Amino acid sequence: MTQIPEPAAPHLDADALEQLLALAHRLADAGGAAALPHFRTAALTADNKHSTGFDPVTAADRGSEAAIRALLDETRPLDGVFGEEEAPKPSRSGLTWVIDPIDGTRAFISGLPTWGVLIALDDGASGRIGVVYQPFTGERFTGVNAAGGGRAEFRRGAERRPMRVRACPGLAEATLFTTAPEVFSPEEAAGFARVSRAARLTRYGIDCYAYALLALGQVDLVIEAGLAAYDIAAPAALIRAAGGIVTDWDGGDPRWGGRVIAAGDPRVHRAALELLAG
Amino acid sequence: MTQIPEPAAPHLDADALEQLLALAHRLADAGGAAALPHFRTAALTADNKHSTGFDPVTAADRGSEAAIRALLDETRPLDGVFGEEEAPKPSRSGLTWVIDPIDGTRAFISGLPTWGVLIALDDGASGRIGVVYQPFTGERFTGVNAAGGGRAEFRRGAERRPMRVRACPGLAEATLFTTAPEVFSPEEAAGFARVSRAARLTRYGIDCYAYALLALGQVDLVIEAGLAAYDIAAPAALIRAAGGIVTDWDGGDPRWGGRVIAAGDPRVHRAALELLAG
Repeated sequence: MTQIPEPAAPHLDADALEQLLALAHRLADAGGAAALPHFRTAALTADNKHSTGFDPVTAADRGSEAAIRALLDETRPLDGVFGEEEAPKPSRSGLTWVIDPIDGTRAFISGLPTWGVLIALDDGASGRIGVVYQPFTGERFTGVNAAGGGRAEFRRGAERRPMRVRACPGLAEATLFTTAPEVFSPEEAAGFARVSRAARLTRYGIDCYAYALLALGQVDLVIEAGLAAYDIAAPAALIRAAGGIVTDWDGGDPRWGGRVIAAGDPRVHRAALELLAG
Repeated sequence: MTQIPEPAAPHLDADALEQLLALAHRLADAGGAAALPHFRTAALTADNKHSTGFDPVTAADRGSEAAIRALLDETRPLDGVFGEEEAPKPSRSGLTWVIDPIDGTRAFISGLPTWGVLIALDDGASGRIGVVYQPFTGERFTGVNAAGGGRAEFRRGAERRPMRVRACPGLAEATLFTTAPEVFSPEEAAGFARVSRAARLTRYGIDCYAYALLALGQVDLVIEAGLAAYDIAAPAALIRAAGGIVTDWDGGDPRWGGRVIAAGDPRVHRAALELLAG
């Protein structure tokens, strides 16, 4: 038997990226169409993924990922797929779609429209496309990272406009978001508290929507811990395309999740990293 | 000079309430139309209401209240008005409109569509009408408390459907919302932590939208502290109309704000009150 070599990252020119972005929108549509009918229905029940704690997986979650995978199998059979609900599919093209069918399941089961369908395209070296789609509000936050630089766009209905992170000179002017105080270990919580005390405003509770608002130039800093790779792939590609920075708490590659920090301005990123370190 | 007597609560029959509800919607429209153009604009700047802390008041906030008051002066000149931004106007009819032109100003300035325009009508004894309106998503959560009982309705575009709180047997099954850990004093935080540990799921960060989701039967419990009267008037009327319970942490009338607890099911309300008390 011959060993199948690891496929190299393919060259993606502007046309290829544009076509892949169009597909990313179709994937988001497919996921959203599967998920949205379950939103705010009394029949929505949450299974327990783990015997301890509360990690709801719903028919919506599974249906969304299945719809996205079906469309990928049909259109891009050689691409890899890495998602929350099913086993990873290895890439034979050098490209991998990283998807979270419903990011923010707790928001979803609470009726709060801050969940999203996350679609990212990774070329083995970095995220080239990131889409955060909120089907109830109809908002799409899209980023493409081409060789020449990033380009991010907000879409809602007929509205389309470029997106860019905003400048922020320091933490004293920064609006900070995180999901919930409980995501942190005691040590992490102490680091977060140092940043929060230095920030102008701290807000909680909105999962992927916080990264979308950062890309939109509405907030300055998002700090989280305990993320999975599929939680951060699309937001990271989106934010980089919008001119922002996403790293782990040590300043390294955030692609495997864990402790993640995203900032619109490098001055805020640097100051927050220092306070997180202690 | 003769003393002007305190006007008695007028009798409001079904027709009168229906007309006042139609006006409440117009007031919410007027407030939303003044606020929404400022949402997610770079020009949105926040003044500091107090020299300490961060309490943003924006042109949007002031414009929304001014628009609501102008419409009330024109249509109901004898009614009282109690709002966040301007001095109270005493009632000469026995009816008072209690308004928060933008509840959730921090969400508003962060680009998060969980703020709302709050309109309540109080007859001196209790809240008869409560409207929570979210202009960006186009959602309206409406409650009317008539002599014969309450009636609550969800509206969005052409969609209209009745709303009702959901049953929940106890805290172990309950989804709990609050705005942020920082709203509590240390003693309050300890009480909240006891409830949170007993609850199935705790979520943060959504201001008036949490009460709307409770009325919609999506969440079971909202616990807050440090509220103003105009923060709770519309949510309280809405939730009572949808079959729920709103009190202060001692089980008393929540109309003056402060520490507030809202529940869809009396069993959850009772259990949470006990844990808050220690």
